[in-house]
Parts: sequence; structure tokens; C-alpha cells
Amino acid sequence: MHVVVNAAMSADGKLSSRRREQLAISGDEDFARVDRVRAESDAVVVGVGTVLADDPHLTVKDERLRERRRERGEPETPARVVVDSSGRTPTDAAVLDDAATTYCCLSEAAPVDRRAALADAAELITAGEERVDLLRAFAALQEAGLEQVMVEGGGELIFSLFEAGLVDELRVFIGPTIIGGRDAPTLADGEGFVADFPELALEAVDRLDEGVLLTWRVEDR
Amino acid sequence: MHVVVNAAMSADGKLSSRRREQLAISGDEDFARVDRVRAESDAVVVGVGTVLADDPHLTVKDERLRERRRERGEPETPARVVVDSSGRTPTDAAVLDDAATTYCCLSEAAPVDRRAALADAAELITAGEERVDLLRAFAALQEAGLEQVMVEGGGELIFSLFEAGLVDELRVFIGPTIIGGRDAPTLADGEGFVADFPELALEAVDRLDEGVLLTWRVEDR
Repeated sequence: MHVVVNAAMSADGKLSSRRREQLAISGDEDFARVDRVRAESDAVVVGVGTVLADDPHLTVKDERLRERRRERGEPETPARVVVDSSGRTPTDAAVLDDAATTYCCLSEAAPVDRRAALADAAELITAGEERVDLLRAFAALQEAGLEQVMVEGGGELIFSLFEAGLVDELRVFIGPTIIGGRDAPTLADGEGFVADFPELALEAVDRLDEGVLLTWRVEDR
Repeated sequence: MHVVVNAAMSADGKLSSRRREQLAISGDEDFARVDRVRAESDAVVVGVGTVLADDPHLTVKDERLRERRRERGEPETPARVVVDSSGRTPTDAAVLDDAATTYCCLSEAAPVDRRAALADAAELITAGEERVDLLRAFAALQEAGLEQVMVEGGGELIFSLFEAGLVDELRVFIGPTIIGGRDAPTLADGEGFVADFPELALEAVDRLDEGVLLTWRVEDR
């Protein structure tokens, strides 16, 4: 399994303002790039916070990219995965429509009624007691045939994936704005590291739209 | 007056971990670059949080750079400025030694005993009731002859300077590590913007040490 985290942040490392509204940090070139990365993936993963804040569809937008996937015998848009410890994904969430297979990764703490509601629209994976055990959940995704995995956020999930040692690559678009705010979501939130910080190696630096795309490889720990 | 904010952050936009200990995010090339920027400045500014956390000296380290300043008839190290609303700078802080002139920007809320203690080692500038009024404080610094100003942090001061519209240029070294943490200090903390985000223009992208230096010009608002 190869896990790529892809995100866009402001020049000061924020994914959004403290209001957590979706902001256009990048532009058309980056949107097209993200669409290409999705088209090369078997699955696109987000945390439930992103579903609740932005209600993303997570499908491949470009018809030619969808066509190429069909020609390769793949579903025209990759599987969608929501990491959702307590089963809070709304049943009318865009990721639960029939455009692609969707997996909900739950913990054992997810209430039975939420499980029943989600089971109609998603494949359920249960791992972990109070919070999703990401190592076990991602192992289950791999068993389901998902090898090339793209993670689109948010900052809580991204931190947890780094903590679990699951990230192979980080691609960050840095946009030409300052958002600020000690309570604004950042690229990696969670508890944070205080020692043994994950080490990265800078693979590529590309100017894109009005910002820059950094591609980092995550060093083995 | 020309104000340059200079900082080093992790790939996820943090200046330090939630413990606020000083971390080596950049390397020798960036340290030498920061020393050159200091040597080209009339003043180096930090917030009191940085003084309390790191006790920086803020002097020019390279003897040749100091020599060149002397040849130009300048003090061998630029003035140091602490933005310190309530006068918390310790009297034994490294920035208060006699290596250079030091200005303490206080608010009217700074207690008289703190004023008296600091007046021995620093020039006091009072502006603002509870918090330093940065527009007035920086106007006083300009009147004192400080034209080329470098700001080294932390995230609270940097946000306040963006909020006041005082930043002309932002230079950020992005290092090859993830720090994470929703409570870790970021490049721009404070309340944060929710609209009318400051706009930047990317002037330069330079690979340096194991990371990248981004130079942004701040667009007029």
C-alpha cells in the first residue's frame, strides 16, 4: 500500500479559518492536479470532520480521466473512505452517493443505529475501541484491493496517519495568503509530536497557480 | 519603513511543538541567511513570548558582517525590539545586554515596577491601553531612525503585524519535518482572519538546507 497525503494550505500552514469554512487556497492548475492524483488512486480518504465541514464528493471530475480509468477496467472514480470513529457521517453526505464504492471506517464506539443507517450506503470496517485503529483499518482496505491511497484531510486525520507511520508521501500546495488563528485547522493537528518528529525528504518543488507545490517523501522511522 | 517577517516552520506550518521548546527546523545555510538579513536591518523585533521561551540574543553572529556594519558607521549589531504589552521581559534576558540598543514596546497596562526595572536596560515606548498599539509603536521606532525592520516571531506577534497591515515581506524557511499539534504555535496565530485575508505574491523559491525558502511580498490592502 502506498499512502499519499495531499492538501492545500495557506502560507502560514492553515487548511481553513477558525470558522472551518472551505476556502479556495489553490487555483485551477492545482484542482486539475488533484483530479489527476485522484484518477491514479484506488481510494480517496478523508476524516469525518471534512465530510461534515465541506461535504465533498471526492470523485474524478475530468471526463477524460474517468474514461481512461474505464479503459483500464477500473471503476471510473476511486473508492471513497471516511474515517469516522463514532459514525457521524450523514446519510445524505455526497460521499455516500452511488458514484463509487464508499468505505466507512468506524470504531467499536459507533452506535448501532448509526451503523445500521450507514450500512445501506457504505461498506463498514470496524477497528479500534474508541477511535479508529488506523493500522488495522488500512490493512482491511488493502485486503479489499486498495493499494494506491490518497488522503485529502483534514488535519486531525493527517496527524493520526503520521503518528501511525502510515504516510509515504506528502504533497502540499502552499497558497498566497495568510489565514492565521491559533484555533484554525492546520495541516497536522491532533496532540502533536514533542520528540521523534517524522522526517521528510524534499522530492520536488513546483510553482503552480500563484503558489508552490512541495512534494515530500516520508523517511522510514 | 520596510518590515520583513522571517521565520522557520515545519512542513505543517509549526514554529515549535506544543511544549514551545526551541527546535532546529532549518540548518547552517538558513542560519547564515538569517544572520545576513539581521546584518542588513536597523532593528530585529520579537514578541515577549519568544523572549520567555527562547531567550534569544538577536545579534549578528558573523564577525565579517559586524565589521561591515562598523565600516558603514552603523552599530555592529542592529537594535533589538521586544513587543511586550505587560512588561514581562526578564531583566536578565539576553536581549537586554549591552550588545546593542534595545527598545521595549509596552502598553499602558505594564505595571510601574516593571517599567522601572526595564528602563535601566532598554528604551521604553508606550503605545496602546491593554495591548501594544503596533501602528503607533512602529511609528515611534521609525522616528528613532529604524527603517529596515526584521521580525523574527513568534506567531502571535506575526499575526498582529499582518492584522495591522505592517508587513511588507514574508520569508519562510520550510523544514523537512512534521511537528503537528492543534496547540502548537504556528507562523500566524492570534484570532485569525475569517475574511479579507492578506494576499501575498510569491517572489522567490529557493532550496536551502534540506528544505525550501519562500519569499512572499505582501500585497497592499
